[in-house]
Amino acid sequence: MTTTRHSVSFLGLGEMGSELARTARRAGHPTIVWNRTAARAAALVDEGATAAADAAGALDADLIVVCLFDQASVHEVLDPVAHLLAGRRLVNLTTTSPEGARELARWAAGHGADYLDGGIMATPEMIATPQSAILYSGSATLFEDHRTFFEIWGGAEYFGDDAGMASLYDLALLSAMYVMFAGFFHGAAMVGAAGVPAKEFAARTAAWLPALMPSIAEYAAVIDGGDYAVPGQQSLHFSDISDIVNASRDQGISTEVVDVVQRLIHRQIDAGHGNDGFARVIESIKKGAAA
Amino acid sequence: MTTTRHSVSFLGLGEMGSELARTARRAGHPTIVWNRTAARAAALVDEGATAAADAAGALDADLIVVCLFDQASVHEVLDPVAHLLAGRRLVNLTTTSPEGARELARWAAGHGADYLDGGIMATPEMIATPQSAILYSGSATLFEDHRTFFEIWGGAEYFGDDAGMASLYDLALLSAMYVMFAGFFHGAAMVGAAGVPAKEFAARTAAWLPALMPSIAEYAAVIDGGDYAVPGQQSLHFSDISDIVNASRDQGISTEVVDVVQRLIHRQIDAGHGNDGFARVIESIKKGAAA
Ligand SMILES: NC(=O)c1ccc[n+]([C@@H]2O[C@H](COP(=O)([O-])OP(=O)(O)OC[C@H]3O[C@@H](n4cnc5c(N)ncnc54)[C@H](OP(=O)(O)O)[C@@H]3O)[C@@H](O)[C@H]2O)c1
Ligand SMILES: NC(=O)c1ccc[n+]([C@@H]2O[C@H](COP(=O)([O-])OP(=O)(O)OC[C@H]3O[C@@H](n4cnc5c(N)ncnc54)[C@H](OP(=O)(O)O)[C@@H]3O)[C@@H](O)[C@H]2O)c1
Repeated sequence: MTTTRHSVSFLGLGEMGSELARTARRAGHPTIVWNRTAARAAALVDEGATAAADAAGALDADLIVVCLFDQASVHEVLDPVAHLLAGRRLVNLTTTSPEGARELARWAAGHGADYLDGGIMATPEMIATPQSAILYSGSATLFEDHRTFFEIWGGAEYFGDDAGMASLYDLALLSAMYVMFAGFFHGAAMVGAAGVPAKEFAARTAAWLPALMPSIAEYAAVIDGGDYAVPGQQSLHFSDISDIVNASRDQGISTEVVDVVQRLIHRQIDAGHGNDGFARVIESIKKGAAA
Repeated sequence: MTTTRHSVSFLGLGEMGSELARTARRAGHPTIVWNRTAARAAALVDEGATAAADAAGALDADLIVVCLFDQASVHEVLDPVAHLLAGRRLVNLTTTSPEGARELARWAAGHGADYLDGGIMATPEMIATPQSAILYSGSATLFEDHRTFFEIWGGAEYFGDDAGMASLYDLALLSAMYVMFAGFFHGAAMVGAAGVPAKEFAARTAAWLPALMPSIAEYAAVIDGGDYAVPGQQSLHFSDISDIVNASRDQGISTEVVDVVQRLIHRQIDAGHGNDGFARVIESIKKGAAA
C-alpha cells in the first residue's frame, strides 16, 4: 500500500519559512517553494523541493503556506495573484496583528480561499522539536483536515474561528518574552557595572527565572478568582522595588525598565490596595495608564 | 562519637526567617529564636527551638542570623544591643541595597563583629530544596567556616569581600524577576481582554519562557564579546514591537510595559544601529535614559 501525501507550497524562504519547508519535505510531502530572492530556494531544491518560477506557480498545491516578513509583504506577494486563490487553502504563518489577521481572513474569503492564521511560538532551530508550538485560528475545517500535518512542526493548537485570536495570543506571549529579555538586560547592566560578565549573570538568570513559573500560576489563580485579598500572598506594600530602583541608579544605569514596574505597583498602593497581593498589578495594566 | 553542632540564633521569624530557623533546627543545631511579635516563635519552640526573651538574649550563639524586613529594622533591632556584638559572627539575610549592606558591614566592624551579607534567591517554600540559592558576600572566614551549614538551605555562593556584592546580584536577579512578572501580567491582560482566563495564559507562559533561556545565554555571549554585529542575530530593525504595542492599545489596555521595551530598541535604531543584534538593547540601559 502506498500513501500519497498532499502537496504543500511555501511562499517566503527566510529563516523560518525555509525550516518549515524543510520539515515538510523531510516528512515526504511534495514541496513547492518560492522566494522573492530566488537564490534562497537553492538549498531546498537540493533537498528535493520544486522551485516555482513565480508566486503564481506556487499556488498550485493542496496547502499553501505563507511565511513572509509582515502583513504588507503578504499583500505585496498575493494581491497580484489573488484571482488564482479560489478554492485554495491558505495558511498564513507571517506574524501580523490580530486586526491584520482578520483583514487577511476577510480578503481571502473575498477571493474564495479558506484561511487559517498561525502564530509561531518557536525560533527556526526549535521547529520540529517538542519545544515548538504554533497557534492557529480561522478556518476550523482547514485546521482539522491538516492537524496531523501541522504537528510535524511541533505542537498545534486551535483558538477558534476568529482569525485574529492566534495572533493576539502570539503577541501576548511575545510581549512576555520581550519584557523578560528587557529584565535580563537590566539585571545584566546592574551587575555589569560592577564588572560581572553577562555570561555569568545569564547562567544564574537561566536557573532562576524558570524556578519562578509556579508563582505565575499562583498569580493567575488569584486573577481568575477575582479576589486580590486572598491570604498567603506577597502584598503590594512588600513588593515596593525602591531598593532595585535605587541600586540601579547607584550603578549609573537607566532605571526606566524597573520604573515602569514600580509605577504599576504604586498605582495600586495609591488607590488604597497596598495590602492586596502582588497579582493586582494586572489591574494597573488593564485599566490603562494614568496621566 | 558524638558531634556537637554549633548553635545558631535567628532574629526575625517572618515567613522567611521561620523557614530558615526550622531547617537549622531539623538539621540538629541548637536553635535560638527571637521575634518582635513573640507569638510567631511558638511553632518553632514546639519543634524544639529555644525562645530568647529579648534580642540581647538571641546574641549568645555561635552564629547569629538576622532576617528582618529591611535595613532600618536591622538597625532598630541591633543598635540597642550593639555592645554585645564584639567577637560575634553576624549573617544578615535581610534584603538591603548594596550600599545598605556595606553600611551594615562597616557598622558591624565598628562593633567588633564579623559580618556576612546574604541575598536569598528563593521563596520560603523553596528553602532546603535544590531550587534555593543564597548569595553571600563579606567576611570570607565566616563564609568558609560555615559553608556546610549554609548549604542546608540550598545552594550557597560567595561573591567576595565587598559586602554589597551579594545584594547587588540579588537585586539584579530580582529585577529580572519583577520585570518578567510584569511581562506576564501584560500578556495576560492582552488575552484577558478577549476572554482568555489568566490560568490558561499562565500555563502557556510557563512552558514558553523557560524554553527561551538559551537565547539569554546567546545575548550574553554577544554582550561579553563586545561586537553587536556578529552574524546570526535577530536585528534591532526586526525586533521593532509595534505589532505588540498596537495590539495592546486595540485591546484597551495600558501599553507602558511594552512601550519601555520599544523605547530601548528604538534608541539604538535611532543611533544608527538597526542592523545590529537585539542584544544591543543593553546599551540603552547602560548609557542611561535619554531626556
Ligand atoms: N525567525 C523567528 O525566530 C520567528 C519566530 C516566530 C515567528 N516568525 C515570523 O515568521 C516570519 C518570517 O520570519 P523569518 O525569520 O523567516 O524572517 P526573514 O529570515 O527575515 O525572512 C523574511 C522573508 O520575507 C520575505 N519578504 C520580505 N518582504 C517581502 C516582500 N515585500 N515581498 C516578498 N517577500 C518578502 C523575504 O524574502 P527575501 O529573501 O527576498 O528578502 C524572506 O523570505 C515573520 O513574520 C516572523 O515574525 C519568525
Ligand atoms: N518571603 C520571601 O519570598 C523572601 C524571598 C527572598 C528574600 N526575602 C527577604 O527576607 C526578609 C524577610 O522576609 P519575610 O518574607 O520573612 O517577611 P515577613 O514575613 O513580612 O517578616 C518580616 C519580619 O521582620 C520583622 N520586623 C519588621 N519590622 C521590624 C522592626 N522594626 N523591628 C523588629 N522586627 C521587625 C517582623 O516582625 P513581626 O512579626 O513582629 O512583624 C517579621 O519577623 C526580607 O528582607 C525579604 O526581602 C524574602
